[in-house]
Amino acid sequence: MGVKYYSSAEIEQLEEFYRRRLINSLTGYKNPFLVGTISKTKNENLAIFSSVFHLGANPALLGMVCRPHTVRRDTLENILETKKYTLNLVEETFYKEAHQTSARYKADESEFAATGLNPEYKENFLAPYVAESSVQIGMTFLESLQINYNQTQIIIGKVESLFINESLLAADGHIAFENSNAVCVSDLDTYYSPKRISRLSYAKPNKKL
Amino acid sequence: MGVKYYSSAEIEQLEEFYRRRLINSLTGYKNPFLVGTISKTKNENLAIFSSVFHLGANPALLGMVCRPHTVRRDTLENILETKKYTLNLVEETFYKEAHQTSARYKADESEFAATGLNPEYKENFLAPYVAESSVQIGMTFLESLQINYNQTQIIIGKVESLFINESLLAADGHIAFENSNAVCVSDLDTYYSPKRISRLSYAKPNKKL
Repeated sequence: MGVKYYSSAEIEQLEEFYRRRLINSLTGYKNPFLVGTISKTKNENLAIFSSVFHLGANPALLGMVCRPHTVRRDTLENILETKKYTLNLVEETFYKEAHQTSARYKADESEFAATGLNPEYKENFLAPYVAESSVQIGMTFLESLQINYNQTQIIIGKVESLFINESLLAADGHIAFENSNAVCVSDLDTYYSPKRISRLSYAKPNKKL
Repeated sequence: MGVKYYSSAEIEQLEEFYRRRLINSLTGYKNPFLVGTISKTKNENLAIFSSVFHLGANPALLGMVCRPHTVRRDTLENILETKKYTLNLVEETFYKEAHQTSARYKADESEFAATGLNPEYKENFLAPYVAESSVQIGMTFLESLQINYNQTQIIIGKVESLFINESLLAADGHIAFENSNAVCVSDLDTYYSPKRISRLSYAKPNKKL
């Protein structure tokens, strides 16, 4: 088979849904997280996000992309209102329930109740964790960056609390995800189970890995 | 085994390398990309990045995190200087060479030559693609966002050209990465081969996936 080439002009002329799938696919494998929030009026919300990224270890900062704030976005609104959210690892035992949180439920309907996933409150943190998850991260909102080209927002937060199943935690701080049932996702809908190939050494010039 | 809990105060007091591995692990599975650039003086550069994320399908925008600009950062400097860079999928057949690009080579040393990966120039695009890669993305730099808390930069670019091996391209625009040998990475050093579980339908309330 050959190689398909698209110029930017050709990408712009693609049918809308084809383009969306193609461009959503480009970033390859991503780690989905369930984002747990609660509104001031105590409505819980749970939503799957697949664009959480590392921004620094000290302070421990994570970024996350939120779509334009033009329709109701409960997660974004709750984060801006309460400054607290949780990130919860998605595992093969509940990835369908996690995916189901992307359905458009009504504002007062909890995705916890709708999917059967269990909210967990601990260490006085305002937002709910997902009890089923073996890595749970409590986040405090710091700032939001607006992308000029499409009104997408990047939410930046600091790791406030961290709960990790000890079976995943290596002696040097590395998290061994192969000991969990964590999944990854491509596009917005295709789920995978990663099998470990190897852990490589720190790369130096002229030295074999 | 139990659950290990870290508060933000405890994270701040962790030994530096332990904290770095722990926090670098938090984002789970990531898709590494080889970023190809060339300087004005025609020095080629190739570097592995694992924080490329989707920012929008129309226009087709991708973001990428660059560490603070305090030491020599050839990739960042070349992008700011020439406005062009490529993102190339990392596959199991050359993931060790890809990892090796993270070694600190001298400024005039090409990571292409050092690792044996092959630069490919096409469609009049300034920056080199990786010939071995079955998804190659030509990017034009649009803007850089500075993170106030740690001087990290987020590079935002537009997809200018796209080359995809046709064996990966589904009829609806979805890229079927399971037909490639693409790898994912956790922390900065552990590589995995994802096995497809399933492609789920668009989620709707009260409808089985």
